[in-house]
Amino acid sequence: MHVLVIGAAGMVGRKLVERIASDPGVLGFEIDRLTLADAVAPEVPEALLETAAAVIVDLADPKEAAKLIDVRPDVIFHLAAVVSGEAETDFEKGYAVNLDGSRALFEAIRHQGMQEPYHPRVVFASSVAVFGEPFPEKIGDTFFNTPLTSYGTQKAITELLLADYSRKGIFDGLGLRLPTICVRPGKPNKAASGFFSNILREPLSGIEAVLPVDESVRHWFASPRSAVGFLVHAARLDTSKVGPRRNLTMPGLSATVGEEIEALRRAGGEKAVKLIRREPDAAIRKIVSGWATDFDAQRAADLGFRAETDFDEIIRIHIEDELGGTLA
Amino acid sequence: MHVLVIGAAGMVGRKLVERIASDPGVLGFEIDRLTLADAVAPEVPEALLETAAAVIVDLADPKEAAKLIDVRPDVIFHLAAVVSGEAETDFEKGYAVNLDGSRALFEAIRHQGMQEPYHPRVVFASSVAVFGEPFPEKIGDTFFNTPLTSYGTQKAITELLLADYSRKGIFDGLGLRLPTICVRPGKPNKAASGFFSNILREPLSGIEAVLPVDESVRHWFASPRSAVGFLVHAARLDTSKVGPRRNLTMPGLSATVGEEIEALRRAGGEKAVKLIRREPDAAIRKIVSGWATDFDAQRAADLGFRAETDFDEIIRIHIEDELGGTLA
Repeated sequence: MHVLVIGAAGMVGRKLVERIASDPGVLGFEIDRLTLADAVAPEVPEALLETAAAVIVDLADPKEAAKLIDVRPDVIFHLAAVVSGEAETDFEKGYAVNLDGSRALFEAIRHQGMQEPYHPRVVFASSVAVFGEPFPEKIGDTFFNTPLTSYGTQKAITELLLADYSRKGIFDGLGLRLPTICVRPGKPNKAASGFFSNILREPLSGIEAVLPVDESVRHWFASPRSAVGFLVHAARLDTSKVGPRRNLTMPGLSATVGEEIEALRRAGGEKAVKLIRREPDAAIRKIVSGWATDFDAQRAADLGFRAETDFDEIIRIHIEDELGGTLA
Repeated sequence: MHVLVIGAAGMVGRKLVERIASDPGVLGFEIDRLTLADAVAPEVPEALLETAAAVIVDLADPKEAAKLIDVRPDVIFHLAAVVSGEAETDFEKGYAVNLDGSRALFEAIRHQGMQEPYHPRVVFASSVAVFGEPFPEKIGDTFFNTPLTSYGTQKAITELLLADYSRKGIFDGLGLRLPTICVRPGKPNKAASGFFSNILREPLSGIEAVLPVDESVRHWFASPRSAVGFLVHAARLDTSKVGPRRNLTMPGLSATVGEEIEALRRAGGEKAVKLIRREPDAAIRKIVSGWATDFDAQRAADLGFRAETDFDEIIRIHIEDELGGTLA
């Protein structure tokens, strides 16, 4: 079977590829070919050197999506996107990549299928940015999509296309609305959501981190390991159980910054907590106040998707997967 | 002020133009120019010969949308669409007109605004086809869009684009999800929903009509006069009251076929009811069973949109507007 990962150089893409490298049977079939595509060259892990090839693609160019599909991959992970902030400031680029790029991919599959039967599984990484405030206390599975960013609009539109193309039998698609990934590995970045990870990752490594909001701020989380678990589960899922509603809010953990900090105290002690420097930032507080805080992701849970249930588990996973299993 | 009606040759478009012809101040401002555009030449009413021009456009060609916008109309009614059945059988045409045509229109407005400030009102005719079963007993204003047709998908996507372009200040848009229009004037057509109008219109004119479903079938209706009322109200509405959620389910009447027939009996007597021939049609019954039956259109009601509250009123409007005010 041939697996294509579009967005393989991104954080979730790299984690997915690492998972395939360490557990080649994870998707439930033998992978004899793996194509790793992204706007920058994705890294090919040692263990995959024989089956995997890295490809640089510009999804804004419809011909490039067609080239990826020409070789008829059986399972396609579509994780590529211009991120929220950039899609908001560069209107044209956001639509060109996040909407037109996704549609070109779906159209390339349709054209392949017109030549010879072809019905790949497509797993699309969507986002809770398809929702816009005001929210109910918990956002249920039938709540409407009223995004308040162009990024969220592009994700919501791609979800609709994915459902229609699946309904028409063009491919077998699933859209997964991922929670905010925590603890994000790597360095602190400038994303407004960065502090949720920074205040755990940095102190656990003995480094100071800035907290720009109050401890009462609540948000929706899953670990990188869960994010990969969602993608793998979606690739293996019996979609006859899903029906025509192909886009699912993934399960997650609803927790406050205060709960994050208490879990940090249990894992790293008072010395870790002391590395959090409080620097209230009105701009970040305002952005974060518009984000969803809790979901009732019943359908995904019923279909077997699983996430963490407390921050102790999220921190334990970070220590296992990023810090070699123990704190220094 | 310059008003552009795209889809002016369609049933609702023609009714809107007739309304403007008979009441030139209906939009709350003086209309010094009226452009009537459609895929076939729209008729220009006598009373509008001095201000109105008919234009043939192919919305699937992005250059044609740009031509309509080059002259910077102040209010744009976007009523044009490939209908549901055709969009389902001709996948490419449906997407080319209903999605790409709408987007080309929105992009043309954006490009005009980049040259010189431009911020027209855009009133878009959407559809309850953005919803897909299973439904709650009443579909509320926050129920999600899971269309089960390509037409419904294209309408739902255009709604998302309209909201995003409005949020970005590119234009001032409102999307109106119209109920099934009843009594549709004209001849019986082959639409699966046609019988809802046929069983009133034909008997009221002494002609036999076929009823393919049971009397218990419930559906969601508004008169052509209400449909025009929605469009006019949307053109005049203070959108600061609407906020970023720009797409509204219009009010309507939830009624059964049995209730239709009882209203027909009151208006046209037993001799009219006897002209309904029962010819059960399993295919039509199946299509209709997937349609929404009732809505709680609270937001639209709060914003001043009004529809009929019983079938007696719907029949009275048909007699007034189409039959000269009295039955023969």
